[in-house]
Amino acid sequence: MRVNVVGAGALGGYYGAMLARSGAEVHFLLHSDYDAVAARGLEVRSIRGDFRLPRVHAYRDPAAMPKAQCVLVGLKTTQNDLYEPLIAPMLAPESWVCTLQNGLGNEDRLAELFGPQRVAGGVAFLCSNRVAPGVIEHSNYGAVVIGEFARPASDRVRELARLFVAAGVPCDVTDRLLEARWRKQVWNVPFNAISTLAGADTQRIVTDPELRALVEAVMREVQAAARAQGVEIPDAFLADRMAATDRMGPYRTSMLLDHLAGRPLEVESIVGAALRAARAANVPAPATHALYALLRCMHSAGSERGER
Amino acid sequence: MRVNVVGAGALGGYYGAMLARSGAEVHFLLHSDYDAVAARGLEVRSIRGDFRLPRVHAYRDPAAMPKAQCVLVGLKTTQNDLYEPLIAPMLAPESWVCTLQNGLGNEDRLAELFGPQRVAGGVAFLCSNRVAPGVIEHSNYGAVVIGEFARPASDRVRELARLFVAAGVPCDVTDRLLEARWRKQVWNVPFNAISTLAGADTQRIVTDPELRALVEAVMREVQAAARAQGVEIPDAFLADRMAATDRMGPYRTSMLLDHLAGRPLEVESIVGAALRAARAANVPAPATHALYALLRCMHSAGSERGER
Repeated sequence: MRVNVVGAGALGGYYGAMLARSGAEVHFLLHSDYDAVAARGLEVRSIRGDFRLPRVHAYRDPAAMPKAQCVLVGLKTTQNDLYEPLIAPMLAPESWVCTLQNGLGNEDRLAELFGPQRVAGGVAFLCSNRVAPGVIEHSNYGAVVIGEFARPASDRVRELARLFVAAGVPCDVTDRLLEARWRKQVWNVPFNAISTLAGADTQRIVTDPELRALVEAVMREVQAAARAQGVEIPDAFLADRMAATDRMGPYRTSMLLDHLAGRPLEVESIVGAALRAARAANVPAPATHALYALLRCMHSAGSERGER
Repeated sequence: MRVNVVGAGALGGYYGAMLARSGAEVHFLLHSDYDAVAARGLEVRSIRGDFRLPRVHAYRDPAAMPKAQCVLVGLKTTQNDLYEPLIAPMLAPESWVCTLQNGLGNEDRLAELFGPQRVAGGVAFLCSNRVAPGVIEHSNYGAVVIGEFARPASDRVRELARLFVAAGVPCDVTDRLLEARWRKQVWNVPFNAISTLAGADTQRIVTDPELRALVEAVMREVQAAARAQGVEIPDAFLADRMAATDRMGPYRTSMLLDHLAGRPLEVESIVGAALRAARAANVPAPATHALYALLRCMHSAGSERGER
């Protein structure tokens, strides 16, 4: 299966490099890192062992790439307005698109642009960071759960899962992608938002009684928003995520890392998407709204800084 | 009436200087600013005209002061653990204490320490800043509403009000101090908290639709907490406060200024007190809780910085 990776940073760069190392045919669309990757390839510094791919198929123009069988999307969701110009040129009639991005709503947007039958998605549990052009640090986890958009899993999704597993990436297939996305939101919404606003790692959050109560309140609001979309998440799952975080040690969320590095924040796809789902169903989400309103302001302050 | 001012910063320094300028007998208890004030007096740079008091009665030891008739408390509420050591030594049997501090609960704490019959309070509407030792900048407003703690106004409170008016400070007397405090909380809780967390002035807050909605949500939670304490605040008052803020222009709240200057934040007396009132009455206050939990964390981060 020929895989075109769009957005070869912390997420797409890691999974693309793992697939390429195992012998899969992978083509990378790059922007700011193009020169570095074209010259020196990709480097992964991983807890599971460092490796280097001295030569990879690197492109800066999607029209110059071979048509993809599968397009693997690893963009930050803050760049989703680039879906059409980046992905459309590499689609053949049978091409499909699998987004590994964070949050909710990415498959919906891809389906609007390219048709729902082309769209699949994966929920990635990965701690990685692009530390320099073409250099990715993989610090923890790495499993993926993939599925079709709004329908049961298909052969193409199972084939991609086998490719991942052969590449050393634990990968499950799901018939209920939306449920997997909401389950990740249960953790992602409170911990990403609160860690960023409070400048705190997960350990500080779970050991502060007021912040912990805030996490629990937001988890319940996300649970209620999911229920309004037909996804039932049991209370035991919320308790289990909290207990897992208690055991996790001090961990900085991706949004906090983005904030500290002055990068745009994935507020809309993570926090905004949960809030919009609640609002659409008239489900109250006052704590999530407070976090969202404050993060948006922080976000735009960041953008303004970036523009100077 | 002999007035002892405790905490002669932006608040107590301004009102004490106004009283002293008008000829009242005012004694100032000072800590970090003692040397400057003992040597050069007090300076007020005011929108209503600058003035200087080259010599004032300045002390650093409360036991060295004459017994007060009225103790005017202008401490930051973050220093309320100093009530007893600072105030007890200056009390004669007939002395009473009037706190002009921010938020809720200050009279209650003073009543626990010195007996409810000694306690009165004032709600100050003042924009001022201590810009250097002994130098206070008065940038807007200045009116006070004073009343007795948990009972109708008395002659001593009316006498203090006449003193303020004679000194050029607009001052009304109220029979319902608690209601005046809660009405100020309606504005203070949302705008102080949100401005500090978002790093935004009032104009930015009221013109951002999500932050504005958050202000409205917190106002309603404060209104409900007040109702649980028997204080009814009409919806029209909330709308009026919002409209007044629309007309106010870009204004930085005292908590935001404290935050930017690295000073401790009055989180407990403003936001914490509203939340505790809601919790005591089982009134939901999820948005206020979100702000409180985040501010506490910011607050302790500030303290940690200060300790290094």
